Amino acid sequence: MEYRVEKDTMGEIKVPNERYWGAQTERSLENFKIGTEKMPKELIRAFALLKRSLSTVNQKLNKLDAKKAGAIIQACDEILAGKFDGEFPLAIWQTGSGTQTNMNLNEVIANRATEILGGDFRKEKLIHPNDHVNMSQSSNDTFPTAMHIASVIEIEEQLLPSLEKLKETLEAKEKEFAGIIKIGRTHLQDATPLTLGQEFSGYRSMLEHSSSHILLALQSLRELAIGGTAVGTGINAHPKLSEFVSEELTKLTGKTFVSSPNKFHALTSHDALVFASGANKGLAANLMKIANDIRWLASGPRCGIGELNIPENEPGSSIMPGKVNPTQAEAVTMVACQVFGADTAIAFGASQGNFELNVFKPVIILNFLQQVRLLGDVMESFRIHCVEGIEANSEKIASNLQNSLMLVTALNPYIGYENAAKVAKLAHKEHLSLKEACIKLALLTSEEFDRYVIPSEMIHPKA
Amino acid sequence: MEYRVEKDTMGEIKVPNERYWGAQTERSLENFKIGTEKMPKELIRAFALLKRSLSTVNQKLNKLDAKKAGAIIQACDEILAGKFDGEFPLAIWQTGSGTQTNMNLNEVIANRATEILGGDFRKEKLIHPNDHVNMSQSSNDTFPTAMHIASVIEIEEQLLPSLEKLKETLEAKEKEFAGIIKIGRTHLQDATPLTLGQEFSGYRSMLEHSSSHILLALQSLRELAIGGTAVGTGINAHPKLSEFVSEELTKLTGKTFVSSPNKFHALTSHDALVFASGANKGLAANLMKIANDIRWLASGPRCGIGELNIPENEPGSSIMPGKVNPTQAEAVTMVACQVFGADTAIAFGASQGNFELNVFKPVIILNFLQQVRLLGDVMESFRIHCVEGIEANSEKIASNLQNSLMLVTALNPYIGYENAAKVAKLAHKEHLSLKEACIKLALLTSEEFDRYVIPSEMIHPKA
Amino acid sequence: MEYRVEKDTMGEIKVPNERYWGAQTERSLENFKIGTEKMPKELIRAFALLKRSLSTVNQKLNKLDAKKAGAIIQACDEILAGKFDGEFPLAIWQTGSGTQTNMNLNEVIANRATEILGGDFRKEKLIHPNDHVNMSQSSNDTFPTAMHIASVIEIEEQLLPSLEKLKETLEAKEKEFAGIIKIGRTHLQDATPLTLGQEFSGYRSMLEHSSSHILLALQSLRELAIGGTAVGTGINAHPKLSEFVSEELTKLTGKTFVSSPNKFHALTSHDALVFASGANKGLAANLMKIANDIRWLASGPRCGIGELNIPENEPGSSIMPGKVNPTQAEAVTMVACQVFGADTAIAFGASQGNFELNVFKPVIILNFLQQVRLLGDVMESFRIHCVEGIEANSEKIASNLQNSLMLVTALNPYIGYENAAKVAKLAHKEHLSLKEACIKLALLTSEEFDRYVIPSEMIHPKA
Amino acid sequence: MEYRVEKDTMGEIKVPNERYWGAQTERSLENFKIGTEKMPKELIRAFALLKRSLSTVNQKLNKLDAKKAGAIIQACDEILAGKFDGEFPLAIWQTGSGTQTNMNLNEVIANRATEILGGDFRKEKLIHPNDHVNMSQSSNDTFPTAMHIASVIEIEEQLLPSLEKLKETLEAKEKEFAGIIKIGRTHLQDATPLTLGQEFSGYRSMLEHSSSHILLALQSLRELAIGGTAVGTGINAHPKLSEFVSEELTKLTGKTFVSSPNKFHALTSHDALVFASGANKGLAANLMKIANDIRWLASGPRCGIGELNIPENEPGSSIMPGKVNPTQAEAVTMVACQVFGADTAIAFGASQGNFELNVFKPVIILNFLQQVRLLGDVMESFRIHCVEGIEANSEKIASNLQNSLMLVTALNPYIGYENAAKVAKLAHKEHLSLKEACIKLALLTSEEFDRYVIPSEMIHPKA
Repeated sequence: MEYRVEKDTMGEIKVPNERYWGAQTERSLENFKIGTEKMPKELIRAFALLKRSLSTVNQKLNKLDAKKAGAIIQACDEILAGKFDGEFPLAIWQTGSGTQTNMNLNEVIANRATEILGGDFRKEKLIHPNDHVNMSQSSNDTFPTAMHIASVIEIEEQLLPSLEKLKETLEAKEKEFAGIIKIGRTHLQDATPLTLGQEFSGYRSMLEHSSSHILLALQSLRELAIGGTAVGTGINAHPKLSEFVSEELTKLTGKTFVSSPNKFHALTSHDALVFASGANKGLAANLMKIANDIRWLASGPRCGIGELNIPENEPGSSIMPGKVNPTQAEAVTMVACQVFGADTAIAFGASQGNFELNVFKPVIILNFLQQVRLLGDVMESFRIHCVEGIEANSEKIASNLQNSLMLVTALNPYIGYENAAKVAKLAHKEHLSLKEACIKLALLTSEEFDRYVIPSEMIHPKA
Repeated sequence: MEYRVEKDTMGEIKVPNERYWGAQTERSLENFKIGTEKMPKELIRAFALLKRSLSTVNQKLNKLDAKKAGAIIQACDEILAGKFDGEFPLAIWQTGSGTQTNMNLNEVIANRATEILGGDFRKEKLIHPNDHVNMSQSSNDTFPTAMHIASVIEIEEQLLPSLEKLKETLEAKEKEFAGIIKIGRTHLQDATPLTLGQEFSGYRSMLEHSSSHILLALQSLRELAIGGTAVGTGINAHPKLSEFVSEELTKLTGKTFVSSPNKFHALTSHDALVFASGANKGLAANLMKIANDIRWLASGPRCGIGELNIPENEPGSSIMPGKVNPTQAEAVTMVACQVFGADTAIAFGASQGNFELNVFKPVIILNFLQQVRLLGDVMESFRIHCVEGIEANSEKIASNLQNSLMLVTALNPYIGYENAAKVAKLAHKEHLSLKEACIKLALLTSEEFDRYVIPSEMIHPKA
Repeated sequence: MEYRVEKDTMGEIKVPNERYWGAQTERSLENFKIGTEKMPKELIRAFALLKRSLSTVNQKLNKLDAKKAGAIIQACDEILAGKFDGEFPLAIWQTGSGTQTNMNLNEVIANRATEILGGDFRKEKLIHPNDHVNMSQSSNDTFPTAMHIASVIEIEEQLLPSLEKLKETLEAKEKEFAGIIKIGRTHLQDATPLTLGQEFSGYRSMLEHSSSHILLALQSLRELAIGGTAVGTGINAHPKLSEFVSEELTKLTGKTFVSSPNKFHALTSHDALVFASGANKGLAANLMKIANDIRWLASGPRCGIGELNIPENEPGSSIMPGKVNPTQAEAVTMVACQVFGADTAIAFGASQGNFELNVFKPVIILNFLQQVRLLGDVMESFRIHCVEGIEANSEKIASNLQNSLMLVTALNPYIGYENAAKVAKLAHKEHLSLKEACIKLALLTSEEFDRYVIPSEMIHPKA
Repeated sequence: MEYRVEKDTMGEIKVPNERYWGAQTERSLENFKIGTEKMPKELIRAFALLKRSLSTVNQKLNKLDAKKAGAIIQACDEILAGKFDGEFPLAIWQTGSGTQTNMNLNEVIANRATEILGGDFRKEKLIHPNDHVNMSQSSNDTFPTAMHIASVIEIEEQLLPSLEKLKETLEAKEKEFAGIIKIGRTHLQDATPLTLGQEFSGYRSMLEHSSSHILLALQSLRELAIGGTAVGTGINAHPKLSEFVSEELTKLTGKTFVSSPNKFHALTSHDALVFASGANKGLAANLMKIANDIRWLASGPRCGIGELNIPENEPGSSIMPGKVNPTQAEAVTMVACQVFGADTAIAFGASQGNFELNVFKPVIILNFLQQVRLLGDVMESFRIHCVEGIEANSEKIASNLQNSLMLVTALNPYIGYENAAKVAKLAHKEHLSLKEACIKLALLTSEEFDRYVIPSEMIHPKA
């Protein structure tokens, strides 16, 4: 590989000649050979949007001339178009302010903008990473700003749409299954009946509640730290910078962003991400419950509950045609574990700020974006490869319902509680149906039983 | 001890004669000798409010006569007045639906109401625990309803008022310290200055954000499961029951409650508590940061940072008059650990529902109410015994500020960046002040230095 | 209430006259009105053992005369006998070194020892809390020492015996069920058979593994901080103190204790408790799996798996004789959640030490002892009220096994893989037994089928 | 891209022609488009070692002929040599038994082995993925076996060596700093002195304890599930298979492996990984404490503690030559957060087994290997780029020690406790040194003070 020599205040360092990054990125690569986790591409994208907005605003505030600003903007647009995906190689496990990733962006943008202006960044910098690209900024305000931008975008563009589609699919099943009465189960034990549609309405309502929680949590994520610069005072920034940049980002992304009302808070607290992670965790808990229900209801084919059929997506066993492993449900529940783990890391990191800065930013955003990405992806996968194809096994549902002893409740008004209890006990002991037990005890005829025991009357309140 | 014999469907059981509880409570005591954690009194209170409301509504719906309803209501009022605090002895570690605590309430209320009606509950039950006190209810809807009632009450009556008072105290300090300029610190390293008031404004803003998150999380906690009965269908309940009970509870408590829009969700998902626990965890993380800052800023007296003085509440050391241990801050940070631990337990339990019921309700509410109680109490303790008494150590703050090398930033426009760097390097190397270094390098006179280096110009944005 | 006036270096303070505690305990009560969690009695007991041992050793080292030492020892013995249970009222949420609880012990012991020596502690202190009871000690070494003593005692006396008994019960079931062949289940789907005894052997092996992990984790818990005094250097302590106290504690308790090899580690790291909490968490995860299996296998009575019958300990439903809620299993799984939550709090606290001390000791030991107590208690409850009474529902097990399509595997050598697949598919499609499908396809006679399909040949490896 | 058509029991599917993987891998790719987390390369390596060992053993047991076995072994060796790194593209978020990754291995090995035997796998399979590569195996025993193999190898080859080297470096510093007496700090407040070497000995002891915990946790990780096949019974496996494979793996890797004593446990419990994760978490907590101490002791340069100098690895600020951000310490503490998060995910997954299988295996091993990799890497990075370069700032240490009021303790024997207290109070109030206060109070001469106050006498126990 060929190298060029770059300089920073520490001295000279060799950088691969083909690379757009500069000295500080290269130093970070050498100093932090830790793990496999790189800065998420969603964060790099947010950073490019932010740097672009800052150039626009710095020009507007007459701090940056149009030519330079234009070159920076074009470089950012090229990054957003994916042309420099290989140029952001830094690890999560670097400085906790994310300074080196801020510099990675500054260096790549400056070098590319230099090219755009007709220069050769290997020889001269027509755009300076600090003076121009990082103008009026600090890592301490840009990094948390990029964290919020990325979070809002990913939640709005990935997580919520997946959630909405899964909700709609569950809602369609709710309607499809509205007429199917089945045995209820509490404590894993047979209970009074409900419709399969009602059961699915619970899942739909879970997603609605989670959606509403995530939307509430979004509010604080829209607040941006930009303008706080090094310690929150805004030293070196223009008083209007924060407001203008928030407006520009709103225009650019179509998402609402506002200037954070207190920049000291914005640099040191990540309560907005902790809160949003709580919403994500609530969603994960709900998904775990739904996926568990579905795989249990589909358990069998012979020796389980077997009330649902789920799609067969891959060979279960070459010898067992009925063995359909609920693999999509398994992916969902594993993702739930990961979301819980990520929440632990996020909150721990968020609790560890000191004075004017929290230096656990990279680990926080790594885990938060992982939550959002995994939840979005797994809901989509679960919907397409499992939920849409769920069918009711009506035969099994009906036989379970008919076999259930719980329907005896309906006989109380006709034969009295004590006789009803006798019926249930006899049926349980001798493995009879309730009807058979009634007849054996000479309490009711078959016709009377059928007239009184009507599950469809047991599935709603009555005045 | 004297005993009486009580009966339930399992047969006879001896109950201490002085006790108002009945057979099912007694069985639970014998079957669940696990740990020391009892059902929280806040939950018992919520249950009494709920049972009271249900009697009012059952009377209104003509299901319960006025005499019986009145006796139940009076019994509930006596429980609320604390007259039966010793009658709710059950462990958290019982059935996961909380059925036994629901029955504990039913039994105590029925027995006391029997007395109120002039009967002797040791001989006859004028009020039946199931038929009258538990009328139109199931453990499966009353327990989660009581969970939400207790949560809303404790958050509104304990947590938020403590938070508000602490916030006001921090705000008062913010104003008190508005004129004190001090060195900023990022990465634990000296940085550009800010005012001590600005630093405290960050703490104030943290509490404001946490408060807003908790308020958002309250919304779903206001939704009540009542009316869902055994499996969510509302079997045995009147269609208006849920709405009426929610209204009655609102009237009774002055807090807003509404009927949950989907009872299948309400019995199986505790997403509202997971979400609210996330808000609590965000608050805990913020408090940990604040308490850490305060104890670090008060570290010393000689070999630490020493910029704040905090109240001395107890003997530190008999020999070291200056040694004031930051014990209140330590209580805060330990509470933060506990809130994090509780969050783990809550979310884990919430993820484990099956079919029509989640049977991890007692462990969820134990941990949630612990969070709320500890956060409320510790903010109050921290405020009274620490924050209100915080004083700025102006002398130390000033000397730190003056010693700092970071003020050199202000000289860039006058002597240029390179010379400024020389000044800083010389000062660092030879342990000089910046002014001394300037003079030694013959770059500025003492007067010039004082004219240019003005920390108060470094603490805000500039146009 | 009557009060007496006590003094410490902060001045005078009123203490309830009946109480043995002194000024510092009283101050803590007033300054830390936080939560309901008190110092666990197991820790108070450990402290009494420690203070007793220190008096013995201080006498041996000629630092304390026999009379004073004897009075202190007697006071400790009385505490150990439970005579002063009401005298240790302090909250967990106090100073993070546990200093106030150390002083609570010192004050109560000094006052009671004063009485023993014939004095009136309300007027004079014949035994001084600091000079005599706390001789050669600091809170900073006694509190972590008491943490380890309590942990070792509770693990050895409560947790491991419960674990051993549950293991033996599972082992008895393993033997009892050795001959019962049943369908296996993976992914919740029917799989190849095993014996019910084999299934229970997995549970037994889980407990054996957890037991071995806990025993390994005990090793570091036996190391005691005592002798490190204020910062780990052992200032004010005799060089032999640590060794002698460890020996005395070993003699006193019958448990092995040794002097920690590095006292700086002992005061600042709680890695031994984090590690042991990991062992506890592994046990909790195993118990959750076992309890889940048992409740699922006992699900029904009609619409679940129904392969096991579990004891009915309390009324399930007055109308459903077969409805036995698996309440003991529910207690187990809720305890698992709590153990997980406690682990979060323990590790968080353990990570937060600074310089010569970790000041999260009370929250760490609260959670660790809760883990140990709950695990010990719940295994005992689960064993007595559930596991011992588990019965195999042989009929259901046999019918599930016979119905299973998975037995078709055994036919491969006789009719070939493709024909076997046809059999399974036909059986699945037309709800036939495998035998019926074989006959219908004219592949085998009934006799041949019975000769070839022998589940007992499918439950072990073959050469 | 060119495609070929592959078949499995679900039918045909197009696979990129250049790929060695087959139908089931391809299906998984299409069905599980979730997240960015792929099966860790360490696990793939372990799988290749396992498949290799199985071929050796199957040949030895006369189940596989030498030619086929040889081809499989060669294919495995090529995978181990890294020649097929791009052929294992599957996501973590797949079936929870890891079946698809087992098949991925089987397919790639079979196809490459076919080539080795001179065939063209695109046309015919001389080696069959199931019949030959997966002979006598199931995903259910191979995947957990590979989990343990990878864990043992990575701990022994990466984690423990890094830990050992960091420990040695700390030990070298301990010796280097043995003679430097400094002020101790408890509760962040000045306390009695110790040597800097003693302080570092605490760090060294932390690593020793963590090392011993990890070694204890390794014991259970050496137990292998192989031979349990589908449900733990060992159906289709030879009775000697498990023992032989464990021996072969031991020979191949130089690490000790044994056959798990109970295969039902081995397929359903991951207690060994939960326990080991607890050891990892203890190490993470210790590292967090060490890294925090070091960055606090290096805080400044002017307004912090400043007792240590740490290497400057990258530009802090272009204007602040003294500003050295403790970036390596920040990476360490962020890794600690991640290790804690991973522990949550591991234990949650481990608790969720059902019947004969735990289907959270991929998420468990993802997080465990992440812990091991990050801890190993970050200790190496921290050692090289920070710890080795730590220097004592002797001047600051000495001045802190001399300024400290805590040395007054040494005067008790000479001027009495009350006079000593007066000295300390005066010094504190009037910002004097202790000596100045003594002289001002006319209690001691300067010479007397120097004779009595000798910090080196305060750093060890005394007889």
